[in-house]
Amino acid sequence: MEKRKIKFSLLYRDMWQSSGKYLPRVDQLVKVAPHIIEMGCFSRVETNGGGFEQINLLFGENPNNAVRQWTKPFHEAGIQTHMLDRSLNGLRMSPVPADVRRLMYKVKKAQGTDITRPFCGLNDPRNILDSIKYAKEAGMIAQAALSLTYSKVHTVESYVKLADTLIKGGADEICLKDMAGIGRPAWLGKIVAGIKKLHPEIPLQYHSHSGPGFAMASILEVCRAGVEYIDVAMEPLSWGTGHVDLLAVQAMLKDAGFDVPEINMDAYMKVRSLTQSFIDDFLGYYIDPKNRYMNSLLIGPGLPGGMMGSLMADLESNLDSLNKWKVKNNQPTLTQDDLLVKLFNEVEYIWPLVGYPPLVTPYSQYVKNLALMNVMQLEKGKERWSMIADNIWDMLMGKGGKLPGELSPELKALAKEHGKEEFTANPQTLYPDALDTFRKEMDEKGWAYGPDDEELFELAMHPQQYRLYKSGEAKKAFEEDLAKRREEGGGLLEGTKKAVEVVSAAPNGNFAPSTMFIDVDGEKFKVSVSYGESNGAEPAAAAAPVPASVEAPAPSTNGSSKEIVAPLEGKFYLTKESSETPLKVGDQIKEGDLIGYVEAMKTYNAIKSDLSGKVVEILFTSGTEVEEDDVLVRIQ
Amino acid sequence: MEKRKIKFSLLYRDMWQSSGKYLPRVDQLVKVAPHIIEMGCFSRVETNGGGFEQINLLFGENPNNAVRQWTKPFHEAGIQTHMLDRSLNGLRMSPVPADVRRLMYKVKKAQGTDITRPFCGLNDPRNILDSIKYAKEAGMIAQAALSLTYSKVHTVESYVKLADTLIKGGADEICLKDMAGIGRPAWLGKIVAGIKKLHPEIPLQYHSHSGPGFAMASILEVCRAGVEYIDVAMEPLSWGTGHVDLLAVQAMLKDAGFDVPEINMDAYMKVRSLTQSFIDDFLGYYIDPKNRYMNSLLIGPGLPGGMMGSLMADLESNLDSLNKWKVKNNQPTLTQDDLLVKLFNEVEYIWPLVGYPPLVTPYSQYVKNLALMNVMQLEKGKERWSMIADNIWDMLMGKGGKLPGELSPELKALAKEHGKEEFTANPQTLYPDALDTFRKEMDEKGWAYGPDDEELFELAMHPQQYRLYKSGEAKKAFEEDLAKRREEGGGLLEGTKKAVEVVSAAPNGNFAPSTMFIDVDGEKFKVSVSYGESNGAEPAAAAAPVPASVEAPAPSTNGSSKEIVAPLEGKFYLTKESSETPLKVGDQIKEGDLIGYVEAMKTYNAIKSDLSGKVVEILFTSGTEVEEDDVLVRIQ
Repeated sequence: MEKRKIKFSLLYRDMWQSSGKYLPRVDQLVKVAPHIIEMGCFSRVETNGGGFEQINLLFGENPNNAVRQWTKPFHEAGIQTHMLDRSLNGLRMSPVPADVRRLMYKVKKAQGTDITRPFCGLNDPRNILDSIKYAKEAGMIAQAALSLTYSKVHTVESYVKLADTLIKGGADEICLKDMAGIGRPAWLGKIVAGIKKLHPEIPLQYHSHSGPGFAMASILEVCRAGVEYIDVAMEPLSWGTGHVDLLAVQAMLKDAGFDVPEINMDAYMKVRSLTQSFIDDFLGYYIDPKNRYMNSLLIGPGLPGGMMGSLMADLESNLDSLNKWKVKNNQPTLTQDDLLVKLFNEVEYIWPLVGYPPLVTPYSQYVKNLALMNVMQLEKGKERWSMIADNIWDMLMGKGGKLPGELSPELKALAKEHGKEEFTANPQTLYPDALDTFRKEMDEKGWAYGPDDEELFELAMHPQQYRLYKSGEAKKAFEEDLAKRREEGGGLLEGTKKAVEVVSAAPNGNFAPSTMFIDVDGEKFKVSVSYGESNGAEPAAAAAPVPASVEAPAPSTNGSSKEIVAPLEGKFYLTKESSETPLKVGDQIKEGDLIGYVEAMKTYNAIKSDLSGKVVEILFTSGTEVEEDDVLVRIQ
Repeated sequence: MEKRKIKFSLLYRDMWQSSGKYLPRVDQLVKVAPHIIEMGCFSRVETNGGGFEQINLLFGENPNNAVRQWTKPFHEAGIQTHMLDRSLNGLRMSPVPADVRRLMYKVKKAQGTDITRPFCGLNDPRNILDSIKYAKEAGMIAQAALSLTYSKVHTVESYVKLADTLIKGGADEICLKDMAGIGRPAWLGKIVAGIKKLHPEIPLQYHSHSGPGFAMASILEVCRAGVEYIDVAMEPLSWGTGHVDLLAVQAMLKDAGFDVPEINMDAYMKVRSLTQSFIDDFLGYYIDPKNRYMNSLLIGPGLPGGMMGSLMADLESNLDSLNKWKVKNNQPTLTQDDLLVKLFNEVEYIWPLVGYPPLVTPYSQYVKNLALMNVMQLEKGKERWSMIADNIWDMLMGKGGKLPGELSPELKALAKEHGKEEFTANPQTLYPDALDTFRKEMDEKGWAYGPDDEELFELAMHPQQYRLYKSGEAKKAFEEDLAKRREEGGGLLEGTKKAVEVVSAAPNGNFAPSTMFIDVDGEKFKVSVSYGESNGAEPAAAAAPVPASVEAPAPSTNGSSKEIVAPLEGKFYLTKESSETPLKVGDQIKEGDLIGYVEAMKTYNAIKSDLSGKVVEILFTSGTEVEEDDVLVRIQ
């Protein structure tokens, strides 16, 4: 029997982005490209999309130049290039007008990207079908993605049906995008078999992340079921929250009887060592070492493993705040593990109630935040759902697409109470065409649209970042940040300098050297010395930090004052957008009026007044940290 | 159709040992045991064996007490306990007399260990069959292990045949011990199916390490093929060079249609946090953070992933030495990657020539060392095999068991040249019974044999460590080492103190404070100051280290002197064992006589004279570091 061929795609873009914040510069990419080609085992390379374009702007570099230069060598070698896009959200995290989306595919095709992979975090076919249409108009291969999550409503049948819809809607290929790596192997095999049965001629590509540990088993299953392409990473950025390693996949599939390409190991070692040199150059400062680990703890609640770091940080600050409350109220405190188990249980409990949004960024964050808020409120004897951020409401109301499941009656009633209405039309209709506005801006500023209108596209996709790139501020800010990290260290890399400061010497005479040389663990430092007032017996205590808020006595205005307190810990803002008018002393407010926001866990939580009256004091300025129960505003 | 049951074993012993050097103390083990039981998902727990007993001696603790206390709660809960043993090598790295092996099983059974898992690194059935016999005599369940490696001679058929031999020889169960994690999933499935076809009633247990990445896929394959038990680890010590995570395995198998136990997650979180507290207490100092990573780079050459750290260290020192030679000889230098690729190629080339010993400790070390020596010699225009350490010869000549493949004619000829003879009898016959000698020692010292002769057994298994335990020296040495690490940090944990030393201040006057307080990155240190001679412009340069050897002029004895040089870098020893007589000045030596040893990469490499004459000078004392081509001895 002839062996079935399996082809590989190197995720040179995602490999970096699932490990850290940034990507190599174009000069580095151009250096590594010929060796990736020499490896001789890749049919495809993921070159751009995702955060690629935006990151170039953040560096202060031109993303169009980067894409054109970086895709060129692969083209010449007959290797297909591909990109990831977020359908309605284009290359960003918020919805994009239709004319900008359409232009994106034209520009990227002209720049040398062969295939695009549109996905929708909610798996709403409407969002993806538009992308398929635009991509094909532009001459790209449209590889529609299924965002995989594992729940009662995310059945084998539902994914096979979604793939069928997308293929009938014009998709040239299907990607099984297992972006949290939580797809179970046998289940994935059934989805692939189901799609292949309906559409044997449509190529399938499997994309996974190795974090929770299923990926290798999943790859064997999907290959047996009929997948043609496997996404892989390579040393030194494989495994962890990234992707499986090429060497492991190749050896496993070869043994299992597949026809897989051989790997030129000399070239492999060159790519490996160049990639390492980019890490050592500057990228390592932006890579969290924890992302190099595997982690299966989140399989139960279904959350993506890459979320573990931010989850634990959120948990810690909430635990502090909760335990303070518990002590004050004579209740036993909780351990971090107690709270973690409660959080996991709450995620499992509420996920069906909020309609099973796939647990992938940003929806995984939303579900986790809701769950954590609920746990905190319940622990204090309050109700569930007392705090729902605006962007979470948008998701629940269908403004990003249709939820996979049904919203619970309890939440439907709450929505009504808050005056929120379900949105059922195509979300795209909420975002009117905008290119003309951007053309006008460019004309006024004298900026060229660029070949294939690529500069116009970048401005329209990332307006703020593009302006900061054009003004030179982006480059300056990035270089300043990098210089700081080079000095202080960060991520995988150590800094060049430790801060060494003599806070208190023992000047028992009149001598006061201002400079000395100090050896710390074999490293030598030039030290500037300043002398404190202590007489040398003990270091001077650091000045106590000035509290952001004090328990001020009630203002002495006539009558009783009432207080609006922070319902959770976070950063307080009076306004979220420039169009909003900030609250000020003297304003008359009534119950339900907006006071401000607390930004916590990446969402803005609106603070509504539960009182009516005149504002007599606002105790915090925008951008300051508040604790739960801090008094924000006094009303009379 | 009824779902097939899969049962889990928690490798609480190996989990620690595949991450670091040590294991929790018995007081800690006893604390975690009830919660492991509460988890409700384990049929078995690996409690001891491997390094467990020896590590307790190194702590200065009684291993017998530890095993008795730690196995007890599992017994009472109806959970089977198991241990790993090395067949001929018992619980150590060198062969053990038959009477000591026999006593081991009696003692361990009496202490509460239900199952033993004997393995032989060469898969010589003679070594394992003896263990099966002794274990069954003692009333233990004998679970014979196949040591898995992946080569042309390690075929599905060879492993099925080995299992058949062991089962016919009395094995109650079979373990597929995939100790480097390099077994390919489909291949493993075929081995399991082959064994089950012959012996459907014999329980099979699959043991793997997750390092190279195959383990999860392998588990799915072996379960489908008929395995009953899966070895797992759990947070925070799963993945990396350790084992797969319970949560991932359970979820994967459940989805694939197996009947797997549910996990009490409250208890899981308790075990997780207790385990973390043991790491934080002291065990983290002994865990190499690199062992928490996955690594697939060694799949090609077939070496176990856990070897990567020591391999890179060896490579670095050899590269230095090689490049010095290259520069001296006007040849282009090599990069680390050049040397790594050459090493991998050489491993692949020589493995068949040395008869395919399974690539597992210590044999993986032996093969890697041979390959590295060969590469070094070849790079200098010399011959392969110019340096073969004694313990490698022992392996090649069959003194530890029969090699799986054939030794190449080239190596057979070389053996003859070196006067080495093939050994074909049962290796056990080389090691006569020894308990009487140890009884005599105990009688003389007034030491009790203990219940079930368990103290006699410990002395006989680990004579040196037992004596150091009895004298109190072991405890003292361990506590000193731990105190040092607590101060300086190591592994996963930071130290409590940084060494801060002012090597050169700028005393531009007469003031010389001897103590000051210094703040380094927010940590405060009391600093003792001493002043160098530099006048403050630059730190005084550290004194250059005294070279271990100088290029001394030829001694002025009459006539021409000849030199014997070090053939490789390492630690020079005049003798290896106390029974050897060290070379001294004035000795008459002839070609082929032993000069001494260079210990490099954990093997002793004999240095033979290539000259005849009288020794006029020995330039190094035992235990000093030498570089390649350093003159060791002058002869006249």
